[in-house]
Amino acid sequence: MILTFLGKGGSGRSAIAIAAAYQLANDGKRVLLATQDPTTELLLETPLTSEPTSVSSQLWAVSLQATVLLEKSWEEVKKLEKQYLRSPLLENVYGQELAVLPGMEQALALNSLREYYESGDYDVIIFDGSGDLTTLRMFAIPEHLSWYVRRFRDLFLNSDLGKTVSSFIQPISSAILNVTWTAEDLTDNPNAKEGTQMLERGKIALSEGKVAGYLVTADDPYALKTAKFLWGSAQQSGLTIAGVLLNQETTVRDLLQSEFSPLPVTPLPSIQPGEWETLGNALPDLVGSVANAPSSVEIDRTARTVKIFLPGFSKKQIKLTQPQNQQEITIDAGDQRRNIQLPPPLKGQAVKGAKFLEDGHLLVSF
Amino acid sequence: MILTFLGKGGSGRSAIAIAAAYQLANDGKRVLLATQDPTTELLLETPLTSEPTSVSSQLWAVSLQATVLLEKSWEEVKKLEKQYLRSPLLENVYGQELAVLPGMEQALALNSLREYYESGDYDVIIFDGSGDLTTLRMFAIPEHLSWYVRRFRDLFLNSDLGKTVSSFIQPISSAILNVTWTAEDLTDNPNAKEGTQMLERGKIALSEGKVAGYLVTADDPYALKTAKFLWGSAQQSGLTIAGVLLNQETTVRDLLQSEFSPLPVTPLPSIQPGEWETLGNALPDLVGSVANAPSSVEIDRTARTVKIFLPGFSKKQIKLTQPQNQQEITIDAGDQRRNIQLPPPLKGQAVKGAKFLEDGHLLVSF
Repeated sequence: MILTFLGKGGSGRSAIAIAAAYQLANDGKRVLLATQDPTTELLLETPLTSEPTSVSSQLWAVSLQATVLLEKSWEEVKKLEKQYLRSPLLENVYGQELAVLPGMEQALALNSLREYYESGDYDVIIFDGSGDLTTLRMFAIPEHLSWYVRRFRDLFLNSDLGKTVSSFIQPISSAILNVTWTAEDLTDNPNAKEGTQMLERGKIALSEGKVAGYLVTADDPYALKTAKFLWGSAQQSGLTIAGVLLNQETTVRDLLQSEFSPLPVTPLPSIQPGEWETLGNALPDLVGSVANAPSSVEIDRTARTVKIFLPGFSKKQIKLTQPQNQQEITIDAGDQRRNIQLPPPLKGQAVKGAKFLEDGHLLVSF
Repeated sequence: MILTFLGKGGSGRSAIAIAAAYQLANDGKRVLLATQDPTTELLLETPLTSEPTSVSSQLWAVSLQATVLLEKSWEEVKKLEKQYLRSPLLENVYGQELAVLPGMEQALALNSLREYYESGDYDVIIFDGSGDLTTLRMFAIPEHLSWYVRRFRDLFLNSDLGKTVSSFIQPISSAILNVTWTAEDLTDNPNAKEGTQMLERGKIALSEGKVAGYLVTADDPYALKTAKFLWGSAQQSGLTIAGVLLNQETTVRDLLQSEFSPLPVTPLPSIQPGEWETLGNALPDLVGSVANAPSSVEIDRTARTVKIFLPGFSKKQIKLTQPQNQQEITIDAGDQRRNIQLPPPLKGQAVKGAKFLEDGHLLVSF
């Protein structure tokens, strides 16, 4: 299980992540706290490096440093290239030279989380990232990237350019493009499910129930607006949100409860760095609550409907479109775009109607 | 001039950005406030869209929405492809389908800032982004991307694969790769300086003196550590930092002054949303101060030294390397990697020594 905390900066995300890590470790779980925040080591009072460091019994912490991860990944890329390309280009380019472009940090962090998850060394990984749209776009990489590959693969392979290039990279395209990077192929071919390839492994590691987020908010209009925006945006990223953590007790808790319904809202005592046990004891069952979290997409094959949970948005902030081939539907909301692949009975069918329900669900019928 | 504010979330970055925008507009400047933060419209009490909206006299605000910018850019990409590729692949792929991958948001926002800057419609653009490493990586895109192109261009063009592909994309590689994407070519060929191409235009629009940042911090150890980390990291990104804004008066101002020396530290009154004039009046001359900001790199051809300003780091957090061809030096610090191209007298020379001075400068001698 990978857990993360989302909310406006300054609302206490990092402190809550640390308290949660201690709490789960005290419960007997093996916990890894993976952070991208330079203040975490100050809060933990432990210097962190790019290798997991033991913080206390059952608890380790690691700093996900993009420059270090990039060097490591680059060696893998070179190995792959050597295996598949007749005359490798990259041999004399070294990881130590490479600068970090936007997006690389997220791709590298996600890959690193996946590796820690698959290692089996940890029961829970707590990811303390930027806690905003950037974190959400990170968790959506496997879904979105496989969409891009699906969409562009055939265009490219059937083009003149693609036909020429494929004689140079045939092994790659069959090893990666055909076998791995499409969900259809995986459905058709159970052997391919073994998932030796990165992107599919990422999708499996991040599938529903294995990654979840909690919203962290204070009781002020800006923090609340951010939390609501991130709630809807998380659904758009396919990230399950399992609850709201209200940093500081308030008199308007009932009001908040109804605004974030059906999520449970848990009030927390004021945060004192170092007093992790007090804070940890006030947290709900972070792992157990995930099972009760609302799903982001429900497909009813009999009623021929797709129900998408988009809380925190108004009707006019949501746009639904369907590409001509009717293989999927596209939803725009919260500055994110999501392509939902339709399953067999609805695939190839035109959208007949769509209704935005008061409980925050978009009901699309075919 | 493009200005941005960096600091820990919750330290008041967005409020200060808004107050600065009002203040500069009152001074007679035409100001555009460009935001990626969903709470800005709440603070401004004005709904924002992806087109600049008038907020008050001389002041406009725009929400940089990645999904909208992606649709617009996609049309440009398709036009370019049609012009240069014999059989275009992308004709039937529509911008409305494309999901936003990590990194796209930053590339699109930067391109949008450049377009607003070049339009000549605004004297000052205030960018209210995430205010962290992500914003810094965004401003470093032109420098880093041109490094990647420089590094990989020859490798690719001289390879078997490159030779084959170039018959399909020759026009692109000569129009973009050879003419534009390298600083050397630009120096050799003044005509190319006209800068019709994106990346060079980006580099010019973002060159020193045209973009600057201010650090925003409260007087607590976590906000201060973040501000110092971002200060050094900004230098690594080539972003000039012109001052520190201390959100709330404090008794330890003198101490802070020495910690951030030589930057001026300006204390601000406590922030009340809506009272922009009070806050704005307390701000220093944000545009004027940029001229006095310390440079990130100084090259002394006579003394044969390169002096790099890396405040906020300790000696052991800095790594200096030089690739075999000795065309540049590479500096690692603050989870960023920067390749500094050496100018003619130092180019091809080996590093003889490096010293990290107490004032935060790394002095490299050749």
